[in-house]
Amino acid sequence: MSAAAAPAFRAALEGIEQIDQPVLLRQRSRDYYWYSPILKRELDGKAADLIAVPRTIDEVVRVASACARFRVPLAVRGGATGNYGQMVPLHGGVLLDMAQLNRTLWIEKGRGRFEAGVRLGDADTEAQLQGWELRMFPSTRRQATVGGYVSGGAAGVGSIRYGQLRDSGSVLALKVVTCEETPRIIELRGADIGKALHAYGTSGIVVEVELALAPAYPWVEMIASFEDFAVAARFAQQLGESDGIFLKLDSLFAWPLPSYFSGLDGALPEGKHIVMIMVAASDAGAVQCLVKEYGGETTLERPYREERGRVPLYEYAWNHTTLQVLKIDKTVTYLQTIFPIDANVEALIASHERFGEEVMAHAEFQRRQGRTNCSSLQVVRYRDDKRLWDIVAEMETMGIKLSNPHSYILEDKGARVLSADLQLLFKRESDPHGLLNPGKRSRWQAAPPPSLQETRVASGHGHSRAR
Amino acid sequence: MSAAAAPAFRAALEGIEQIDQPVLLRQRSRDYYWYSPILKRELDGKAADLIAVPRTIDEVVRVASACARFRVPLAVRGGATGNYGQMVPLHGGVLLDMAQLNRTLWIEKGRGRFEAGVRLGDADTEAQLQGWELRMFPSTRRQATVGGYVSGGAAGVGSIRYGQLRDSGSVLALKVVTCEETPRIIELRGADIGKALHAYGTSGIVVEVELALAPAYPWVEMIASFEDFAVAARFAQQLGESDGIFLKLDSLFAWPLPSYFSGLDGALPEGKHIVMIMVAASDAGAVQCLVKEYGGETTLERPYREERGRVPLYEYAWNHTTLQVLKIDKTVTYLQTIFPIDANVEALIASHERFGEEVMAHAEFQRRQGRTNCSSLQVVRYRDDKRLWDIVAEMETMGIKLSNPHSYILEDKGARVLSADLQLLFKRESDPHGLLNPGKRSRWQAAPPPSLQETRVASGHGHSRAR
Repeated sequence: MSAAAAPAFRAALEGIEQIDQPVLLRQRSRDYYWYSPILKRELDGKAADLIAVPRTIDEVVRVASACARFRVPLAVRGGATGNYGQMVPLHGGVLLDMAQLNRTLWIEKGRGRFEAGVRLGDADTEAQLQGWELRMFPSTRRQATVGGYVSGGAAGVGSIRYGQLRDSGSVLALKVVTCEETPRIIELRGADIGKALHAYGTSGIVVEVELALAPAYPWVEMIASFEDFAVAARFAQQLGESDGIFLKLDSLFAWPLPSYFSGLDGALPEGKHIVMIMVAASDAGAVQCLVKEYGGETTLERPYREERGRVPLYEYAWNHTTLQVLKIDKTVTYLQTIFPIDANVEALIASHERFGEEVMAHAEFQRRQGRTNCSSLQVVRYRDDKRLWDIVAEMETMGIKLSNPHSYILEDKGARVLSADLQLLFKRESDPHGLLNPGKRSRWQAAPPPSLQETRVASGHGHSRAR
Repeated sequence: MSAAAAPAFRAALEGIEQIDQPVLLRQRSRDYYWYSPILKRELDGKAADLIAVPRTIDEVVRVASACARFRVPLAVRGGATGNYGQMVPLHGGVLLDMAQLNRTLWIEKGRGRFEAGVRLGDADTEAQLQGWELRMFPSTRRQATVGGYVSGGAAGVGSIRYGQLRDSGSVLALKVVTCEETPRIIELRGADIGKALHAYGTSGIVVEVELALAPAYPWVEMIASFEDFAVAARFAQQLGESDGIFLKLDSLFAWPLPSYFSGLDGALPEGKHIVMIMVAASDAGAVQCLVKEYGGETTLERPYREERGRVPLYEYAWNHTTLQVLKIDKTVTYLQTIFPIDANVEALIASHERFGEEVMAHAEFQRRQGRTNCSSLQVVRYRDDKRLWDIVAEMETMGIKLSNPHSYILEDKGARVLSADLQLLFKRESDPHGLLNPGKRSRWQAAPPPSLQETRVASGHGHSRAR
């Protein structure tokens, strides 16, 4: 019997909603890791022993305290829209479902504060009622939560103007609960935000998030189509570098990716490479001019609206691209890569020419270090692991670096090195027993508690490639 | 007697407000060219023969027609806040004062349309009432007009996020009246905007301007102070590159420039180099963190408000910096320079080290070609012309290029080469007799009309340096 099922532990959680039906435990312990055949092999079957659904921070504190006292692992679930098993409990224990911690605390000029379980779509809508909106959101806006996004996300729709979630000014505060016998509630601001940002919930339980908001724009969705991939790529870069054109989405898709997209009849000409765009309505004319200048064709232009039954363009972009293809062809998988600053377009073109349709080019343009750069979520016709890693190795010779989507290990994601030390240091005090989402950090050296030793994943991080 | 004073000409303007008192003609024919001792020598005494003050586009058409028929030169006056004699009539004739053409035509989501004579401050305020604001404005926001800005300006407060006025998407349309016997009213959109943008009114009379607007932010004014100039420069660059920090102003001033600024007691520590900042209120905390990280000190933080008697920070910045110093020391002048992309900070530091207080460093950080760059309006302790040009020549060896503020010739301003051909071509049809603001384009080859030959400025553009 797992520690989480022990009567004394259950008694400690009395009054807090609990779920222990095996079918629900299995269902709710999964995210979208199945995009990766590698993660699918490793994570299928992993599940929590108990789900706790707190309604208040006080209830979160009680769960954290019980876990610390009984040495029960604790993973946190937001919308479970991650792609790397970020929230999948590797060692059973409690899954803390934040769905009921869903109050918008306040929205004022340029900022908003939300409980961790608020869905991003709801946060965005509430902000818009006051003339503001989220600076950025993932393509899973409708399902994902604020807490999940800051714990497992990096960028998204809006990053072409507002940069990365980790950029100073994006996230203004995080309130975290520690996993100790007597948990503390800690407000992180400024550089301290890095202690818990994008930490997969390993260094504290994020219960409140304060975000910088953007003024709400009326957005227009556009698709530009191009004969030649290199031209499409250069257009997407130039568009992103056009400071006078206020953008929210600038996404490049090589043919045949558009052939997998349904619901956009007429906007996706056969054989053409496309750029999906969200642009401030006042700038749509400027985009049309630029499309013409590059010899392309504007094949869609419509107002952006969130409506039932209407798929917004961003649900073809970012991590939704792979999903759109997987709906039709279950054999594909994907890569996630970071491109060299100031040489990303050349690398994109070289990679497209080298791999053709085996690695279908898909790039999300975004601001990074003050530059227009892109990251890529290429859709790969998967043959076997060896071929996948060969592709990765070859890409690295082109300056394209893997941010490994086939690993659930935090340190295998690019650009996280700087905050890793800070997080590990913070974790020593916020999670002294190493109970928070155990197994997700390769550099956490604390001896695992006895309850973990039994169930420890034998293969460890054998799958994770040296970076 | 000038052609503009001829009874037949005056009769053609019947019903249109006219001013011909010599003192008013002299006063209103000037802009701020006197920052430059060189322009002062060349332009002092230049004046129109008649000022016409149209109230409608129809009246503008009548003036343009009369000028074409009688071969009378025509210059256009907005707020007369230019610094290079952009609007100074070199050959007498009519000065078209746009002050009464001051209706805001409409403001809708993300754009606004204004008659040319609307003051930028009024345009900004009217937009703000509807939740929008100007994307950028010059430091002369309170006096300058929309038409004057697009005819003689290039960038301004806001350019750190929205780039240059000439960037696609900034100016959405210009309505111009041609100077022909039967004038045409032409609406310019898209790439055609370049035909009249920043043309000093030489290729058409701008009567309406459609601008992209930005959502209105609550702004905060901040001053950060630094011991070391190089650190201050690097801070200003890093701030501009911080995509998560939404900025409106990012201006660097080397000591002793701050010693000339009054009204900011306590915010300008003796001997310190400063950065003046306007930032979205929600991001002020992120700026504070960055200031600390660079070892600086935040010496001012206050909400931005337009109030009588309160000098906004931007009135110390951009082209106001030189004015602030001139109020105290009449012997200074200035330079205007463009810095190399991706190497601007190094050039700034090298230049500061080389020239010290003789050339007081002042840089306005802004987006240019998708990068955080700066241009500089250095305040120079003027000795004589030779020393001034020696400084310029030495700067050019550092990659710093002059955008000559001591010339009234359009082609002497940097980065205008691309649109010059387009403008000259357009001018052939819009101003066949070469009457619009004659003498401001070195490349206009049309034979001057007889009325000009008499009064032609003998020295021509002898003062303008080969670029």
